[in-house]
Amino acid sequence: MKSHTEYLWFNTKRKREFINITDRVADVLAKSGIHEGFALVSAMHITAGVYVNDAETGLIADIDDWLEHLAPEGPDYRHHRTGETNGDAHLKNLLIGHEVILPVTEGALDLGPWQQVYYAEFDGLRRKRVIIKIIGG
Amino acid sequence: MKSHTEYLWFNTKRKREFINITDRVADVLAKSGIHEGFALVSAMHITAGVYVNDAETGLIADIDDWLEHLAPEGPDYRHHRTGETNGDAHLKNLLIGHEVILPVTEGALDLGPWQQVYYAEFDGLRRKRVIIKIIGG
Amino acid sequence: MKSHTEYLWFNTKRKREFINITDRVADVLAKSGIHEGFALVSAMHITAGVYVNDAETGLIADIDDWLEHLAPEGPDYRHHRTGETNGDAHLKNLLIGHEVILPVTEGALDLGPWQQVYYAEFDGLRRKRVIIKIIGG
Repeated sequence: MKSHTEYLWFNTKRKREFINITDRVADVLAKSGIHEGFALVSAMHITAGVYVNDAETGLIADIDDWLEHLAPEGPDYRHHRTGETNGDAHLKNLLIGHEVILPVTEGALDLGPWQQVYYAEFDGLRRKRVIIKIIGG
Repeated sequence: MKSHTEYLWFNTKRKREFINITDRVADVLAKSGIHEGFALVSAMHITAGVYVNDAETGLIADIDDWLEHLAPEGPDYRHHRTGETNGDAHLKNLLIGHEVILPVTEGALDLGPWQQVYYAEFDGLRRKRVIIKIIGG
Repeated sequence: MKSHTEYLWFNTKRKREFINITDRVADVLAKSGIHEGFALVSAMHITAGVYVNDAETGLIADIDDWLEHLAPEGPDYRHHRTGETNGDAHLKNLLIGHEVILPVTEGALDLGPWQQVYYAEFDGLRRKRVIIKIIGG
């Protein structure tokens, strides 16, 4: 079994930001030399997510609104007694998920025509990290 | 390391539909000859999900109501400016998730007694696809 | 390819409970002798979840409140016509997710500094199980 591991770094200019990382994952896969297997793409933080969906600007704004509606910013989280202000970002992370597993077939990401991989930052303005780990043969 | 890949096709008669695919995943596993490993079951679309839960008709109706409550159909999604009408289906996909990883132990899906694998269609009436990819030894 | 499988048992004293299992997963990994690969941690029930987030008491109470807000206990689930009373627990499971995949690098769980693995019980007071399955080399 082969494995290949790389880390992507992000430092977003806004608190919340959605970044298409599909091509970067594909580049890591190409370097790995793995033909059949699984690629894990996972945020290494508890206030950022990774998901698969459409690269359509309007939809991304819809997703951002929807996450804010279901897991709103606000002063009333118990978590804020620690001095933090990012309670909502933890809940957004839990809602959207922090990792995806992508199938690798014949050396390529085996995604549907509209499936794109996104890094979803919910508490940015600082350096954060995603792990890409591919295993297979 | 062995790997085995198959695709299931769906073309539901209703816009939203929940289909138990546990036996089909088990059949693919049997063909794979893999004894220990992981089975990925992943929708190849951004308006359909895959999840694990109970094969109970009332609960499935509850899940459908709940998804509609938290990610409702409606005219007001920005995504609809592209001509699409399925903004809700994207959000339902993000809520329920588009993939599961099932453990494979001694040649069988290592699931609890009530765990069943479902394909959740949120924008049907057309051909859509799920990938089943199993890796292991 | 190597694989290693263990099961953790839980029997919580309360209906809902959040249990940090990071050290137990790390112990299973140490026993596995696997250096590079993936660790699957998955609830074998449809009314319990597994997620990754912060080990902070206030936040855990926030998560519990939030899950109850979005997937409330109540008498009105169709699922209850079967005699069950745990409709909410199924929805909480779907919201938080029932499994995570953790990267294994150089023999250790490759997690960010605040990432902790939690078992989330939504219908406790009885024996329930989590599978930890690690594959790799």
